[in-house]
Amino acid sequence: MKSPRLATFAVKGTTRYGAVVDGGIVDLSSRHAKDYPTLREVIAAGKLQNLAEEAAGRTPDHALSDIIWLPPVPAPEKIICIGVNYPDRNAEYKDGQDAPKYPSMFMRSPRSFVGHDTPLVRPHASNQLDYEGEIVLVIGKAGRRIPEATALDHIAAVTLCNEGSIRDWLRHAKFNVTQGKNFDSSGSLGPWLVPYAQESQLADIRLTTHVNGELRQDDRTSRLIFSFRYLLHYISTFATLVPGDIIVTGTPTGAGARFDPPRYLKPGDVIEVEAEGIGTLRNGVVDEA
Amino acid sequence: MKSPRLATFAVKGTTRYGAVVDGGIVDLSSRHAKDYPTLREVIAAGKLQNLAEEAAGRTPDHALSDIIWLPPVPAPEKIICIGVNYPDRNAEYKDGQDAPKYPSMFMRSPRSFVGHDTPLVRPHASNQLDYEGEIVLVIGKAGRRIPEATALDHIAAVTLCNEGSIRDWLRHAKFNVTQGKNFDSSGSLGPWLVPYAQESQLADIRLTTHVNGELRQDDRTSRLIFSFRYLLHYISTFATLVPGDIIVTGTPTGAGARFDPPRYLKPGDVIEVEAEGIGTLRNGVVDEA
Repeated sequence: MKSPRLATFAVKGTTRYGAVVDGGIVDLSSRHAKDYPTLREVIAAGKLQNLAEEAAGRTPDHALSDIIWLPPVPAPEKIICIGVNYPDRNAEYKDGQDAPKYPSMFMRSPRSFVGHDTPLVRPHASNQLDYEGEIVLVIGKAGRRIPEATALDHIAAVTLCNEGSIRDWLRHAKFNVTQGKNFDSSGSLGPWLVPYAQESQLADIRLTTHVNGELRQDDRTSRLIFSFRYLLHYISTFATLVPGDIIVTGTPTGAGARFDPPRYLKPGDVIEVEAEGIGTLRNGVVDEA
Repeated sequence: MKSPRLATFAVKGTTRYGAVVDGGIVDLSSRHAKDYPTLREVIAAGKLQNLAEEAAGRTPDHALSDIIWLPPVPAPEKIICIGVNYPDRNAEYKDGQDAPKYPSMFMRSPRSFVGHDTPLVRPHASNQLDYEGEIVLVIGKAGRRIPEATALDHIAAVTLCNEGSIRDWLRHAKFNVTQGKNFDSSGSLGPWLVPYAQESQLADIRLTTHVNGELRQDDRTSRLIFSFRYLLHYISTFATLVPGDIIVTGTPTGAGARFDPPRYLKPGDVIEVEAEGIGTLRNGVVDEA
């Protein structure tokens, strides 16, 4: 049996959430919007798994062809992205520095992401749109100064990210990559949330990125420099994690910028980020209107 | 006559907004919460000035001694902070690099800020809590690729920020200052919003920071490296600015880290960030519980 999957989507101009089942989506907004206006409140209530079970076996309300996929958590309080976190990524920077002692991280705004199957936007300002496939942790239980031993208990769900970046704008500033990481609609989140139940869902899964069917990134979570446990522990040293927070955990080697010459994305390209047990996040590319 | 001033505050356990008048606060939530649940919706509707005028001359509903000041815009979509933006700040870094071509910027989470008169928290993790007095632009009108000529039309209000930072944690990562800028309750925003009406409110105002009455930072907005107009233009190149977005525009020389030996904040200190025509943002310091 497939893992249960919960999605946020638009249909006929309204934003809703539901469970992805064979043949379509079971609409859960129509049944639960009063108690839980969005998946963020479902997460905060600890009800992801319950709602998924309730939907299992039901006849779908919407065909997948009728919906627009949206990032699964609307308006998260924080979207924290981890920089260099797979082996060889530090070496890719060729700056002669040792492996980092602590993770590098930056924030992205919700507006910098589209959902599954909506094209990423290559902006007027640059032709250096690049992909980065990543695994995402969605926080379920609030916490500060979380010990590594219990860190995974704070995860409500997992999903995927194409942490799309505008390479030349990453270097506009001395100390921060904010600009190149926050172009409108330059990345994607989704397609759905898979409720988190046990460590085997995350401990050693394969993460790949294909561009137009060609394998570009390929690594396993067992090789992370900073483990999921450590990341949640470390971030919660400074910030209270709250339900719906999004932690984007880093990308393997093989982004377009690392080729010589670089292989940036262009209109018509199709990028697929895939991880075992989670699914495939697919996006095209269009030029900014 | 004083500028109109609108604040978000807590009283008897509920969060409300109102106008600051002689002798207290006129409660506007009680009259307008249905149309505008928070000041963010007031801003989006372009009604800050109208509500301030409505409240002028009314008898206050709450004494200032009965309220807890909160950051004036609840849950802004984006809080973007500008790095080095006053003369001599670049030189303070002593890294031998030329003046930056573009502004450096990073994001902070709402949870990293308290309001006026609530103490900043020096965390267990570090004793290097430092102050940075700054002027804040609050966005009123959405926009992308905004020309400098019309940039100021997108400002709804101005306020102040103590962009409190944990110095040693700013250098945990190679490329980003995220951690040291996002400790819970390490900075402050407020005390209130002053509606923006004309450029003279911002063009050449004095910005100071005092610690325990001693002047530490003192500069004028006419000396900004990247002007308010340019910042809004530049940020909107990559991101759509939306009502309620917070732009924290940089701090003058004289933060505690720049002294030899450094003069970090400690429990009992009082920091006052003041700007002409806006007000004074005052916070104490406590150790994390």
